[in-house]
Amino acid sequence: MKARVLIRPKAGILDPQGVAVEQALPALGFSGISEVRVGRMVELEIEDESQLDALCQKLLANTLIEDYEVVSVS
Amino acid sequence: MKARVLIRPKAGILDPQGVAVEQALPALGFSGISEVRVGRMVELEIEDESQLDALCQKLLANTLIEDYEVVSVS
Repeated sequence: MKARVLIRPKAGILDPQGVAVEQALPALGFSGISEVRVGRMVELEIEDESQLDALCQKLLANTLIEDYEVVSVS
Repeated sequence: MKARVLIRPKAGILDPQGVAVEQALPALGFSGISEVRVGRMVELEIEDESQLDALCQKLLANTLIEDYEVVSVS
């Protein structure tokens, strides 16, 4: 199956990339945009999807500061 | 509205992060995982969603080497 893992900074954890995006918005003419959070997305083909949770915890996400969410993709 | 933007390397563009993940898998005991591609995810609150496409092209994605996809999140 094809799986997609979404990884985002936990609530309350500083997200410097998101701050940088927000600060760049006015100079580019954008307004009304807030709560910007930048995370990662990993897409992969996996034969045994029961491995996915361990994969996220051991390799893809830093669970101290990041939450992850697994989405199956058709 | 809350929007989610998924940004991934275009097909055919080298993805060193994805290669690094694939190479780390055997040492961690994982098998049967392939086609790993690492991209970015940006989540934000936007008042005027018609700005989203311009935002992606001007700031969030490098459209020379990346594709983006906008997903609305309830």
